[in-house]
Amino acid sequence: MTKSTTSRPPLSPTTRSTPTRAKDRARADRAELDAVLDAGLICHLGVVLGGGPVVIPTSYGRDGNTLYLHGSTGAGNLRAALEGDISIAVTLVDGLIYARSAMHFSMNYRSAVVRGRAVEVTDADERMHALRIVTEHAAPGAWDRVRRPDKKELAATKVLALDLTEASVKVRTGGPNDDTEDIETGGVWAGVLPIRQVWGAPVPSADLEPGIEIPQDVLDRSPRGQ
Amino acid sequence: MTKSTTSRPPLSPTTRSTPTRAKDRARADRAELDAVLDAGLICHLGVVLGGGPVVIPTSYGRDGNTLYLHGSTGAGNLRAALEGDISIAVTLVDGLIYARSAMHFSMNYRSAVVRGRAVEVTDADERMHALRIVTEHAAPGAWDRVRRPDKKELAATKVLALDLTEASVKVRTGGPNDDTEDIETGGVWAGVLPIRQVWGAPVPSADLEPGIEIPQDVLDRSPRGQ
Repeated sequence: MTKSTTSRPPLSPTTRSTPTRAKDRARADRAELDAVLDAGLICHLGVVLGGGPVVIPTSYGRDGNTLYLHGSTGAGNLRAALEGDISIAVTLVDGLIYARSAMHFSMNYRSAVVRGRAVEVTDADERMHALRIVTEHAAPGAWDRVRRPDKKELAATKVLALDLTEASVKVRTGGPNDDTEDIETGGVWAGVLPIRQVWGAPVPSADLEPGIEIPQDVLDRSPRGQ
Repeated sequence: MTKSTTSRPPLSPTTRSTPTRAKDRARADRAELDAVLDAGLICHLGVVLGGGPVVIPTSYGRDGNTLYLHGSTGAGNLRAALEGDISIAVTLVDGLIYARSAMHFSMNYRSAVVRGRAVEVTDADERMHALRIVTEHAAPGAWDRVRRPDKKELAATKVLALDLTEASVKVRTGGPNDDTEDIETGGVWAGVLPIRQVWGAPVPSADLEPGIEIPQDVLDRSPRGQ
């Protein structure tokens, strides 16, 4: 998935050479980065553990220039995430490119890759804020109608913050990029098969008491993209 | 996404302590690992680059106990993938768990994480085989009707093979795991909002000549899951 992409340079301000132009570019890229991060449901977190990399799926949330992660205090991956640099990738696949030749098969996608050093959030207010951000990222509108984390839960939870400064965004759109010869030879179908994530109908929990209606924030989501 | 999961032990035979039982378990896990890898469309590859981990989305394919990756010979990430251990994660999100308390929000998912040392595939026949496997993973049935990789394309392509022995699978299914107190207090909706990937209708390439019908392998896929 590295071919035929619109690749943006890293957002890091340390790579800015011409302040004015870089500022414009950074703003544009920044909006694109935020759009990808906000559209994703999960991220893949890479840490170095036991001498090698390990990649795990996890929840996340974004607030401005900060990406929040959380997990159990007992999770080895989260501990490792605080002992060195980490990387986060969020990828949305939008379509499969059917080309006239095998090597031009590809995908349309939006991808954000962030690298940096995460810090543990220890301030009580920021921890609660981060947990709200992560919960609302996955389930917008849910935080205010559910029980908030209590002391015991908070004690068992580690919250990490990652600065979004060192990030890159790649977006591929459009159709196949076949070789001219293959197009001229013809005879092979080429195109895009779109793919998307859709929500299904809500399934109430088996232990839900009667008379509880499906909340508006869940209803709002169900038909999305169907 | 580390809570409330059915976690399988690593498949590595080095962790087997009781041969007979471990053999049974390994077989069961092995089928589950294959099922997750075969159901995924992309993987997230973690390598160590410049002293820290980096996670990137990429295509893959599986043949028996081998996972194949490919990319441009110029890709720094692929070069890094041959200089140390790598990790691969494939994740399918099946639903969002709406719980009665914020900390019990979760997701239903199937996830495979593989670690190990990739080797470069240099044998011409195996390289072609691997490219077929990766192409057919993304687009089953397409390989035999498109132009195969030529000498120039092969020279620009690196193929990696990763043994699937050191792998773990996690699967979460079912509804929320709320605290008894929260269930007894009641008044909050809890349940699952399913999510799935669906294919859309094929979009022919703008440069496709008239009279080329949509291939059966593309048509077969279009209605899947709709």
